[in-house]
Amino acid sequence: MKILDAEIACEVIRPRLSETHKGDYGRVLVVGGSEPYGGAAILAASASVYSGAGLTFVACAAENHAALTARLPEAIYVDAKTASFEENLTRADVVLIGPGLGLGSGGLLEKVLRGLSAEQTVILDGDAITLWAKKATKTQARLIFTPHQMELERLSGLAIGSQTDAALQAFVEKVGAIIVAKGPETRIARPGWEMEKVIQGVPAQATGGMGDTLAGMIAGFVAQFHSDQAVSAAVWLHAEIAGKLAESQYVVLPTAIISQIPFEMHNVIK
Amino acid sequence: MKILDAEIACEVIRPRLSETHKGDYGRVLVVGGSEPYGGAAILAASASVYSGAGLTFVACAAENHAALTARLPEAIYVDAKTASFEENLTRADVVLIGPGLGLGSGGLLEKVLRGLSAEQTVILDGDAITLWAKKATKTQARLIFTPHQMELERLSGLAIGSQTDAALQAFVEKVGAIIVAKGPETRIARPGWEMEKVIQGVPAQATGGMGDTLAGMIAGFVAQFHSDQAVSAAVWLHAEIAGKLAESQYVVLPTAIISQIPFEMHNVIK
Amino acid sequence: MKILDAEIACEVIRPRLSETHKGDYGRVLVVGGSEPYGGAAILAASASVYSGAGLTFVACAAENHAALTARLPEAIYVDAKTASFEENLTRADVVLIGPGLGLGSGGLLEKVLRGLSAEQTVILDGDAITLWAKKATKTQARLIFTPHQMELERLSGLAIGSQTDAALQAFVEKVGAIIVAKGPETRIARPGWEMEKVIQGVPAQATGGMGDTLAGMIAGFVAQFHSDQAVSAAVWLHAEIAGKLAESQYVVLPTAIISQIPFEMHNVIK
Amino acid sequence: MKILDAEIACEVIRPRLSETHKGDYGRVLVVGGSEPYGGAAILAASASVYSGAGLTFVACAAENHAALTARLPEAIYVDAKTASFEENLTRADVVLIGPGLGLGSGGLLEKVLRGLSAEQTVILDGDAITLWAKKATKTQARLIFTPHQMELERLSGLAIGSQTDAALQAFVEKVGAIIVAKGPETRIARPGWEMEKVIQGVPAQATGGMGDTLAGMIAGFVAQFHSDQAVSAAVWLHAEIAGKLAESQYVVLPTAIISQIPFEMHNVIK
Repeated sequence: MKILDAEIACEVIRPRLSETHKGDYGRVLVVGGSEPYGGAAILAASASVYSGAGLTFVACAAENHAALTARLPEAIYVDAKTASFEENLTRADVVLIGPGLGLGSGGLLEKVLRGLSAEQTVILDGDAITLWAKKATKTQARLIFTPHQMELERLSGLAIGSQTDAALQAFVEKVGAIIVAKGPETRIARPGWEMEKVIQGVPAQATGGMGDTLAGMIAGFVAQFHSDQAVSAAVWLHAEIAGKLAESQYVVLPTAIISQIPFEMHNVIK
Repeated sequence: MKILDAEIACEVIRPRLSETHKGDYGRVLVVGGSEPYGGAAILAASASVYSGAGLTFVACAAENHAALTARLPEAIYVDAKTASFEENLTRADVVLIGPGLGLGSGGLLEKVLRGLSAEQTVILDGDAITLWAKKATKTQARLIFTPHQMELERLSGLAIGSQTDAALQAFVEKVGAIIVAKGPETRIARPGWEMEKVIQGVPAQATGGMGDTLAGMIAGFVAQFHSDQAVSAAVWLHAEIAGKLAESQYVVLPTAIISQIPFEMHNVIK
Repeated sequence: MKILDAEIACEVIRPRLSETHKGDYGRVLVVGGSEPYGGAAILAASASVYSGAGLTFVACAAENHAALTARLPEAIYVDAKTASFEENLTRADVVLIGPGLGLGSGGLLEKVLRGLSAEQTVILDGDAITLWAKKATKTQARLIFTPHQMELERLSGLAIGSQTDAALQAFVEKVGAIIVAKGPETRIARPGWEMEKVIQGVPAQATGGMGDTLAGMIAGFVAQFHSDQAVSAAVWLHAEIAGKLAESQYVVLPTAIISQIPFEMHNVIK
Repeated sequence: MKILDAEIACEVIRPRLSETHKGDYGRVLVVGGSEPYGGAAILAASASVYSGAGLTFVACAAENHAALTARLPEAIYVDAKTASFEENLTRADVVLIGPGLGLGSGGLLEKVLRGLSAEQTVILDGDAITLWAKKATKTQARLIFTPHQMELERLSGLAIGSQTDAALQAFVEKVGAIIVAKGPETRIARPGWEMEKVIQGVPAQATGGMGDTLAGMIAGFVAQFHSDQAVSAAVWLHAEIAGKLAESQYVVLPTAIISQIPFEMHNVIK
């Protein structure tokens, strides 16, 4: 078990090269935001944008279109019911499905998983994990899960008390996916790789929307940093920002973390 | 009569334990925000979120859904006309009904009061108080009222000039509820408990939406602090923040107070 | 001609008394915001709220309801087509009609002017002035106009080159209204009163929405300060804020001014 | 080839004269913001407003009306399907077409280009360039293109590797338009004029919506500064702001740049 520290961020977050354009920083497609849960998709997309993804698209319910655009004009809306969705799916570097998805979207999850190729990454968060636990559709894409403890139980069959490092690693090897097992200490497990742990998380961040925010950061990092450790760096930086903000705030809200991302990413490389 | 000071906040607002997650900080359901009054529900929900409630749901008119999501992506929208409302009602730790409710929502208030169990708390604010004064539906839930002087008159039958401490306490004993009697000096009365008073309120906060904000703070505090004094701490901290902001602002707006909550809660425990 | 300085603000803006509540600070009803011009009504209402009006209502097109609520949750939406509009009209202390009204709203203007009593104040801004110039409906209410030069020409028949102090005063005496004649130097003319002038205005504020913002400030000041000089104080403070912001900004936007109002009102009384 | 520095901004951005009003600072009409791309139009319009354009109108899809108004109340919505669009087209000093336009809007582009007179300027950005490359409708208006490398290829037929200074200048002479050729070093080419280059751009600004923001700044500058060098000054200042923000932020978002415009324009003239 490796305890992550600032080094992981230094390795992953590299100074941008001057001859680059937004196309070099990846396309993220967030799929979620069913009618009641638009905020979750907005938070995830915001975290992706503020992490530096080149382009961030959001496929969400039409009822949340106006709020998305008002809140985050940098993002682009996608109507999941039109052909533009398929096109965006094909062109995305990273698809994050789950934030605010709702449990009625099993068909959409299947469509996403089947539609992706081996060059793409798909991150399953929140309800997408619960849906996948019921019906594990195969996918060509690199697969990342970001479960909290209850979702990990559904996903792996491991009861919360039995989610030991060994059991988690064994499941990761079996399923062939990266798992970000969220908790007071978040573990990152990868097939054939030493497990990593982030220990500076703070309980001030225990509030609704935080998981969506972390998932969005992971998406943004994976899209732009072509490194196996992008996931680890995102998890570490998220906890680092939360810890810093908790020095002056009793509760650290997702929107507070999001606005700090560009500054803390810069602190890493300066 | 006990004059509240910073001590009440220190007793109630405790450092968060590290092995906790959002589920430990309670679920708040705000019911209100009829068509013209969406802002009231947004302010109440914002105060709940910024106070640190684990999850904040808002049942409001569909016309206010987009504004809620644009303004407060941390909150979750609930359609009061679907089954998800009943489910949210059952699962909430605290239901705050009233901010922007409108006087045509008597049926909804009855449904809420009847649907709650003894493990839940219901806060009646604004129009919900006026409606309850007309028809006092019984409820199993712990009951809190947050009337201003005119609403207290409707609620208790006590004319504004007759709302003495003794009369207020007598009414509280009769009705078996906590009453936060708002005014230049806000009193908190509980059955079988010494009355408390907050005296540092400032007239700078006399502006629309402030009651909604206070009610949202109370909801957020009750949801996460399992203490009989959570209500008192919320009322005290609200006045404290208003007083501090009034040192540089002629009028202290609800949104200004809300953004300070996480910082002032931290100041209490540091 | 009196040149206004900080003294006017000191006279008008008084420390709030502790035994007061929002009802003591007046009700403002903004009527405007037809479909394309929702922003104008939002700016006017924001200026009213940030000036400290007790309650601010906005009657605007339904298409602008969501934006109003997302942007300014402290305001309350009014549907001009329902009975609640009449009720709000009757209960308002100040009605500001014009920001974003559109020239197709002559009927609405007539309704407002006819519906008001002598205890109320009506402020005509923007398109409401142009409409009134065509058809001068009588009103019981105290009448204030806030024309820019072209609107003053339409209103008074005085060509821009002929809008001398004497001609303006003569028109004011005839029409029996207060006129805030906006320009590089804004003049405030009242029947039987020495004309006043604000000279610290800056060209940095010459941008769309600024007139709406000033009108909203006037509404907020008239609603809460029961003084004949409330109008003058609002005009002076608006120019004062613009001047201060122009020390660091090339263009001073309405939203920048609005957010400073509570601070600069406090500076006056401290 | 002239390398631009702060001097270009000093020449173009002049202190505002005191006897001026918003009419002196020009009318900008942004045409774009089809359903999925509302954010692009909002960013462009925001950049125009924050640059100091007197009035900024936005013709976009009705689905984006609420978000525009919530985000930028200083702007005015235009329905492209009504007569008000034609009127706005006629009265605009600068029409910026492209941000979020979508490739299905060829008819609208033709209408705009045909409807303008020699006193007006039209800026073609994004999809408008791609559409014009397919069908080059003639226009009386002064023409500005703001292509990135791929769009320049479509526009000029010059493959990305062949977009030399000489080839770009030759194309500019042929087409009779100003071209802002965006890239790590952005070139500004004009018929019969020495080519200019901005070299302080930073890769931190390589993110979605940045082109829309630059186009909006150019529109705002052209509308208010009646100088041939307004385009150059806008491009230089945009890069300057991005560079400054990149000293503390890993990614510089469009909204971060926009909010700095009034301050940096002031720095130029102070």
